[in-house]
Amino acid sequence: MTKKYEKMMGVSEFFNIKFLPKNVSINVKKGTTILEAAEEAGLSINTECGGYGRCGKCKVKIIKGMIKKYKHRELSDEEIKNNIQLACLSKIDDDFEVYIPKKKELEAFMSAQTQNILYKNEFIKDSAPFAFNYKPLSEKIILTIDSPHIDHNPDDFNRIKMKLGKLRSVNDIRCPISVLKKLPDEIRKKEGTITLTISESRDLLDIINISSYSKEEYNYGLAVDVGTTSVAVMLVNLGDGKVVSEKSEYNRQILYGPDVINRIIYASKKGGLEKLRDKVLSTINNLIDSILKETGIERYFINSCSISGNTTMQHLLLGINPKYIREEPYVPAVLHFPNLRADDVMLNINPNGIVYITPGVASYVGGDITAGILRAGINRSKELTLYIDLGTNGEIVLGNSDWMTACACSAGPAFEGGGLKCGMRAETGAIEKIKINQKTGFVEYKVIGGGKPKGICGSAVIDIISELYFSNNINQKGKFNFESKNKRFRKKKTYNEFVIVYATETLLGEDIVITEPDLDSLIRTKGAVWAGISTLLKAVDIKHTDIDRVIIAGTFGYYINIENAILIGMLPDIPIEKFSFIGNGSLQGAALTLISNELRSEIEEISKKITNFELSSTPGYMEEFIASLFIPHTEIQLFPSFIKKKNSTL
Amino acid sequence: MTKKYEKMMGVSEFFNIKFLPKNVSINVKKGTTILEAAEEAGLSINTECGGYGRCGKCKVKIIKGMIKKYKHRELSDEEIKNNIQLACLSKIDDDFEVYIPKKKELEAFMSAQTQNILYKNEFIKDSAPFAFNYKPLSEKIILTIDSPHIDHNPDDFNRIKMKLGKLRSVNDIRCPISVLKKLPDEIRKKEGTITLTISESRDLLDIINISSYSKEEYNYGLAVDVGTTSVAVMLVNLGDGKVVSEKSEYNRQILYGPDVINRIIYASKKGGLEKLRDKVLSTINNLIDSILKETGIERYFINSCSISGNTTMQHLLLGINPKYIREEPYVPAVLHFPNLRADDVMLNINPNGIVYITPGVASYVGGDITAGILRAGINRSKELTLYIDLGTNGEIVLGNSDWMTACACSAGPAFEGGGLKCGMRAETGAIEKIKINQKTGFVEYKVIGGGKPKGICGSAVIDIISELYFSNNINQKGKFNFESKNKRFRKKKTYNEFVIVYATETLLGEDIVITEPDLDSLIRTKGAVWAGISTLLKAVDIKHTDIDRVIIAGTFGYYINIENAILIGMLPDIPIEKFSFIGNGSLQGAALTLISNELRSEIEEISKKITNFELSSTPGYMEEFIASLFIPHTEIQLFPSFIKKKNSTL
Repeated sequence: MTKKYEKMMGVSEFFNIKFLPKNVSINVKKGTTILEAAEEAGLSINTECGGYGRCGKCKVKIIKGMIKKYKHRELSDEEIKNNIQLACLSKIDDDFEVYIPKKKELEAFMSAQTQNILYKNEFIKDSAPFAFNYKPLSEKIILTIDSPHIDHNPDDFNRIKMKLGKLRSVNDIRCPISVLKKLPDEIRKKEGTITLTISESRDLLDIINISSYSKEEYNYGLAVDVGTTSVAVMLVNLGDGKVVSEKSEYNRQILYGPDVINRIIYASKKGGLEKLRDKVLSTINNLIDSILKETGIERYFINSCSISGNTTMQHLLLGINPKYIREEPYVPAVLHFPNLRADDVMLNINPNGIVYITPGVASYVGGDITAGILRAGINRSKELTLYIDLGTNGEIVLGNSDWMTACACSAGPAFEGGGLKCGMRAETGAIEKIKINQKTGFVEYKVIGGGKPKGICGSAVIDIISELYFSNNINQKGKFNFESKNKRFRKKKTYNEFVIVYATETLLGEDIVITEPDLDSLIRTKGAVWAGISTLLKAVDIKHTDIDRVIIAGTFGYYINIENAILIGMLPDIPIEKFSFIGNGSLQGAALTLISNELRSEIEEISKKITNFELSSTPGYMEEFIASLFIPHTEIQLFPSFIKKKNSTL
Repeated sequence: MTKKYEKMMGVSEFFNIKFLPKNVSINVKKGTTILEAAEEAGLSINTECGGYGRCGKCKVKIIKGMIKKYKHRELSDEEIKNNIQLACLSKIDDDFEVYIPKKKELEAFMSAQTQNILYKNEFIKDSAPFAFNYKPLSEKIILTIDSPHIDHNPDDFNRIKMKLGKLRSVNDIRCPISVLKKLPDEIRKKEGTITLTISESRDLLDIINISSYSKEEYNYGLAVDVGTTSVAVMLVNLGDGKVVSEKSEYNRQILYGPDVINRIIYASKKGGLEKLRDKVLSTINNLIDSILKETGIERYFINSCSISGNTTMQHLLLGINPKYIREEPYVPAVLHFPNLRADDVMLNINPNGIVYITPGVASYVGGDITAGILRAGINRSKELTLYIDLGTNGEIVLGNSDWMTACACSAGPAFEGGGLKCGMRAETGAIEKIKINQKTGFVEYKVIGGGKPKGICGSAVIDIISELYFSNNINQKGKFNFESKNKRFRKKKTYNEFVIVYATETLLGEDIVITEPDLDSLIRTKGAVWAGISTLLKAVDIKHTDIDRVIIAGTFGYYINIENAILIGMLPDIPIEKFSFIGNGSLQGAALTLISNELRSEIEEISKKITNFELSSTPGYMEEFIASLFIPHTEIQLFPSFIKKKNSTL
């Protein structure tokens, strides 16, 4: 049909839109935004505001086609002149050709990233700092069932239950129809010798699979950490507890906003909840596919899954609207989830597989934190421990085996690269360390994976604040000190910036900079972390110098320069040897719940033991936060290391 | 496309087939049988052999179109000349017009039949002959959940569990995702007052639904009896245990054979199991739709379902291949089913509804019999009871509260009208009673619902044997006695017959007859029943005169003339007042398990208590069966009533 004919017939108008440089075309209805069209075409343009025209991140260049030109604070006159527009605001009413700048597209989207491989081919139990019993979420039992004869011919299922009853004392047995359907043939194939895959929970036993005995009947489990920015999975051979593979990828929800608040808002839009659920499911299922392809393992052999993640992420994964999380008194729908079946969750593993979801504490202290606490063994130790998860949200736990307190400090996504002009996740191409020569102003940096840099990750931005401050390029409030006359300063119309790496040295041929809004955001982030720590300490009347150990979790944590983090006033000024990193504590904790019923009980206890502080309603928090918006703090005596360094540089 | 063009292009050839008198047309692929085409067109032609060309029941008249003419013992030369052929053997390779004789089509198929309405608007508990506690399979609880505040803000699900924990002591709670999704909004609508629909089983509590409190939140349960010939359902208001509606329909599987053996064979054909499952599901779901339409009740309010049926029917309903039921040592896949979810079973009620399946005893003594025993209260009585289910299969239980024995006597479907030339189910138009004047040979009959008769149902055929014998028209072996010179005898080429009602008096304008093969089949059926009774009695060394009561189950049982059944040697010759009828004991038993957890426990005990005899391997059974192929029996002294009547008529 011609377009004219379509119009005549009242058919909705469709236009063709071609995306460059990938040369992908799609037909979309009139009125679709370029952002939506790109998503439909499988090309994801990164936004931070969820496509509301707020963040100004989704710039694209219109090469062909007429469009209404919008003005926006993030668009310079030069850009508007050059047909650069925001994809989220530009509606299609013509055939188009659109260029998506490379760095705007989330490259990782269609291929799972492999990074931070910590435990591949290692036994999970060896990664935990304590001993525990081994009884995985899904177990494989080999049974030989008595043969029936004409004088004693109980049904197949009963003969299995009788045998099972000798091994396990359970009150009830559940078995899905698909397994009952296989039962009669499988039980007869190997003279009654069968492999039974089961999951025990309290007094209930779930049968996951029944098949005639075979050496090739494997039993795998999947640990999943659903982070706001990244999703990480770990495939474990439950036969021996060895890690087979680990992978991570951006959470595809990121299109709809960088943090939980944006996601919660988006979830309340029409169709938003379903979209967010689809996105996180496709992220996880893509990671699973990628692992299966790489290892040749059959999907059907993944019989259980343990999922950690913050409360909002767990809600979205199940399609539960998280809206009340944001409203006082901050009540989530569920923190202690019942066990679920993989096909109900829509995970592409054995559809009868059992899904365990780690328990949360509160709206903003979720199952990722309890998993991390479990992994760190805080519940088993008398040492006073400070646990800090530096993810997109930023949660803090203080305590030991006797008591625990926690809070979420709304750190924001800056440490994961979110909200920064040149920010990125800690992966290949990210600048992870920075040093600025105090005299020459020369910038030294280290890139993950070597080669030319693409952007700056969380650890480097901590360095940047410290280094800019001690090289006299920013003041105590984190504002540029133009008096330093550093040539790297650039005054711009909308905001000023400091060049970290010049365009000629970067991978994308554009300057890597830190802007004034970036600095504001970073100071607020580091301030929020300290204010959280400080509020918890005050609540239990303990001084920070009494802390026995500090555990930093979060994948980017590995790269942090602790000294700099103390110097900028983010972490408590205690001896460096008291600090340690555990990487993705949430994923590791989930893996532990996958292999041990003892640890599944312990994490439930942890979740009940932790006292949560809602900082927004905790007296004194706001004052503490404001006092923390300085480098290092208004009470400078809390940071003797800072005083020492300051004195040494004078 | 023209057919020529299609052929040229290698496209499968399609032909149009029009069915009369309904005037329904359908296009089908070349090679499809007329039987398959009729099924596709939604017109079901009754067969008894499952469409294998064995029974000769599916005669149709080819009005237009060329077809290869088959010879078949059931087709007379006259019929072949008149283009009458078997639908199952006739393959389509032309455009056709086909006439389906009215009585061949299962009229009941597209509209649910209402018959044997016993309990509508009655309380189920009043129909049972004993008292029991009332606790239905799905329960509705109204709870007011404590409101959260900033200092105490547990998650919604937890607040429900805390409240529930005060009412019910359970070990574990399961809740489907779809309910968790509704949870946050529903809990907030009526200030925390909610209706919780739950099901308790052992120590496990399943949450079926959560909704804000409303007076219009009803809780219904469905009892289903899946018989080989008929499916019956009863909708119960679980709030008070009152029966809302009852309906029954032919089991749509009947197309694939009249008895369980034919169905088991068909299930092993490629795609057969799926077809049988689809058919029985569509039968049940059609009955549900019909009830919902009639009553205006919402599907979503049916929260539980209790399903009884023989072992093969239960297997087929769940799509479990019943093939091993037929093979020595006759082991079914499952007799004690775990509780299932309605959407897994594919029942069109609340998808989270709980499905309970009544437990069976053995391959041929299933959950329909345990349900009947429960209903009859045999497990609660010291009286020695003989329970006979005269369905398509024919099962017998002998015992009391101390012990029970059972057997299946493979009676065949003759009593449900199956396998008889003019047989039909006990419904409107069926002759239910017959008397033959011993002198004049005049036949008196009574039709269910009045009016002209369509056919003969099970109770009448019992009368026929007795009446034909005592009017001297058949001998002790059940063979026609042509010496009686009765004008109603007709000698035919393939078999001889006796006219019960002449064509002029029948609804379909054809003679209603009893044939020699019919008589053979009936003598075998009555012989099988007696041989079963006798074998059970001998196994426990009890005389039939010691029996305290006989309970006849099966919907057609109501119409039986007990005296005649004794006279022909089918039932034990004991005083008539010891006999009683309970109708569809299976359906009523299922309804009892729907409303009482005490009775759910009892039926489990019943199923374990019954000792099953596999008659085919029980010594003496075969001899007993052969001795029973006489009227009344070779040992005539077992039936003094017969001797008395014989003497009085000499």
